[in-house]
Amino acid sequence: MPTTRLEAFSDGVLAIIITIMALELKVPHGEDLSVLAPLLPVFVNYILSFVYVGIYWSNHHHMMHAVKRVSGGVLWANLHLLFWLSLLPFVTGWMGENHFARLPTALYGGVLLMAAIAYSILVYTIIGEEGAGSLLAQAIGRDRKGKLSVVAYVVAIALCFFVNQWSAQAIYALVALVWLVPDRRIERILPPAR
Amino acid sequence: MPTTRLEAFSDGVLAIIITIMALELKVPHGEDLSVLAPLLPVFVNYILSFVYVGIYWSNHHHMMHAVKRVSGGVLWANLHLLFWLSLLPFVTGWMGENHFARLPTALYGGVLLMAAIAYSILVYTIIGEEGAGSLLAQAIGRDRKGKLSVVAYVVAIALCFFVNQWSAQAIYALVALVWLVPDRRIERILPPAR
Amino acid sequence: MPTTRLEAFSDGVLAIIITIMALELKVPHGEDLSVLAPLLPVFVNYILSFVYVGIYWSNHHHMMHAVKRVSGGVLWANLHLLFWLSLLPFVTGWMGENHFARLPTALYGGVLLMAAIAYSILVYTIIGEEGAGSLLAQAIGRDRKGKLSVVAYVVAIALCFFVNQWSAQAIYALVALVWLVPDRRIERILPPAR
Amino acid sequence: MPTTRLEAFSDGVLAIIITIMALELKVPHGEDLSVLAPLLPVFVNYILSFVYVGIYWSNHHHMMHAVKRVSGGVLWANLHLLFWLSLLPFVTGWMGENHFARLPTALYGGVLLMAAIAYSILVYTIIGEEGAGSLLAQAIGRDRKGKLSVVAYVVAIALCFFVNQWSAQAIYALVALVWLVPDRRIERILPPAR
Repeated sequence: MPTTRLEAFSDGVLAIIITIMALELKVPHGEDLSVLAPLLPVFVNYILSFVYVGIYWSNHHHMMHAVKRVSGGVLWANLHLLFWLSLLPFVTGWMGENHFARLPTALYGGVLLMAAIAYSILVYTIIGEEGAGSLLAQAIGRDRKGKLSVVAYVVAIALCFFVNQWSAQAIYALVALVWLVPDRRIERILPPAR
Repeated sequence: MPTTRLEAFSDGVLAIIITIMALELKVPHGEDLSVLAPLLPVFVNYILSFVYVGIYWSNHHHMMHAVKRVSGGVLWANLHLLFWLSLLPFVTGWMGENHFARLPTALYGGVLLMAAIAYSILVYTIIGEEGAGSLLAQAIGRDRKGKLSVVAYVVAIALCFFVNQWSAQAIYALVALVWLVPDRRIERILPPAR
Repeated sequence: MPTTRLEAFSDGVLAIIITIMALELKVPHGEDLSVLAPLLPVFVNYILSFVYVGIYWSNHHHMMHAVKRVSGGVLWANLHLLFWLSLLPFVTGWMGENHFARLPTALYGGVLLMAAIAYSILVYTIIGEEGAGSLLAQAIGRDRKGKLSVVAYVVAIALCFFVNQWSAQAIYALVALVWLVPDRRIERILPPAR
Repeated sequence: MPTTRLEAFSDGVLAIIITIMALELKVPHGEDLSVLAPLLPVFVNYILSFVYVGIYWSNHHHMMHAVKRVSGGVLWANLHLLFWLSLLPFVTGWMGENHFARLPTALYGGVLLMAAIAYSILVYTIIGEEGAGSLLAQAIGRDRKGKLSVVAYVVAIALCFFVNQWSAQAIYALVALVWLVPDRRIERILPPAR
């Protein structure tokens, strides 16, 4: 099976997730600056989630570029990833509406954690089929970034309960920044044209 | 006609259906655990419907891979399938909001039943054009899984009225599990590359 | 310019229009049959609009198949068509909520009329660029079905005001039936493979 | 990296943005002409924003046609553009609901301004990678239209506060008209087939 439709379907789901999160910015009643103020945390929140979906899309794009063929197992590993990402608008909305309260911040981290795990499962499912000598296996290497992210999310969730939610927020932003640099290793290793 | 656009359009509709169902998880007011509790049945429900849409997408993907060319009849058989699947967010929402009551559970089964019938019509329309010796005809064979699903949904709907809705729910989950294993027969029979 | 992206963008817009119309079927409160009854006209309405979007998608699909290259003019003729179709969920919702009242029924016809005109503009823009000897020009011929539809919608709108809305509804359904048969002329004339 | 997925993802996001803006036309209660009147400014507004999204899609389409390969930097420049465009439904809704009041009109201009800047960043990121002798660099030339638009939006926002919002609206419409003529330079310079 070529990767075309898996990419098209994932693009569709991610495009809708991004646009739906923008809808949480509900058009306010009134026309002056004061009605925009309560939307500020929701907006900051939207930026963070937009960046996260962008990261997943960009990495998914890079990864699939190194893949030639997908099996039924890969389809479901991919759907599993999309499932967790599809919960992002809900947790983003809950966190935004409650001005970054403790539990919503932890749940947001929980969804990020599950998405990161699902992404790893997808990577290993593909490597399992393409072989340890495949382009993707070389590009991923020991997958330090992936493993560190999982640890970071677990720490952030714990911080929500034992310290405060702001440290968790800082970690979410930090992990996003680390990932913003796309996996240049794949770009380097890949042959010039598909 | 190549299958490209039929696949792209179906991918679009299925991607939106999945994401719209996630919107039924309405952001609750309040920031503690108690406000999440009423969302639990809606969430369980979402998982079931997500899996069903995933199954249809995955099988559609496998099937279209074995098809070379589509006619007007196939376009409409496909739209007919998408019509029933587009009702899934409605029945999922109704079942979730009423905590799996009797009638909503039966209607959910009704939509699953119609989608299963529409899928069979699509398969037979394609085989009718590709011929009984085609790849798809070989891969589908006697289509026991498809026929058994139709019977299972009819039984589940009857159980809703004469026994209780929990047995119907169990059947919906069971049929989903059976289909989660994608049609490896198509993967086996297909030539290595499209 | 190849037609790929014009098709992908149109597929996206049409897929979202179809799914959004299904959202007009709002999940009712209550779990018995009586809460479904008020949804029946909305449902019938949804079927009609679904079929119309399906017709436009199917004909668009057939037409674009006969087109090799698109210019900026074609892009905008296509966007113009999508503009009128994007109003379909609104007029469908208004007609459904008012149980097929006179004015909503006429406005629904107005949007169908504008979409039909926009489709003709698109066809003639493409023929203007591909030439009168092109595949599409041959396939469309004198475009009797297109012209008759425009006349039918005008008559239907007039009937809404001077007779009653039911005759208009009958015409909308009739025109849909006529178009449900896809333009086999294009299938006949087209070369076997793209 | 080929441009396929970047195009598909952008098409998806833009298709959803267009269709979501149409949802701001909320189905009114009542069936006579008077209930439509309050929707008129929202409708005019929708037309303006529809044309703007159409312009971005059309220019994006033309530009990407001149691009052969995209890097991680281009992906993010593109996501940055989509971010600002994803705010268009919000500012369109706010401007429409407040009947083109001063501040909403200025914010609408602010989002147009940021989108125009993001588009320029995207163009220069691509040219930076393709080289000053590339097709795109030739087609864009000194990018007078792009620079003039940015100036026009800044002027319009200032006019909102120091003169009135109607002059700003006129400028938004004027800039849209200027862009409605697609970049024929790209069509002229491009080789006949991709």
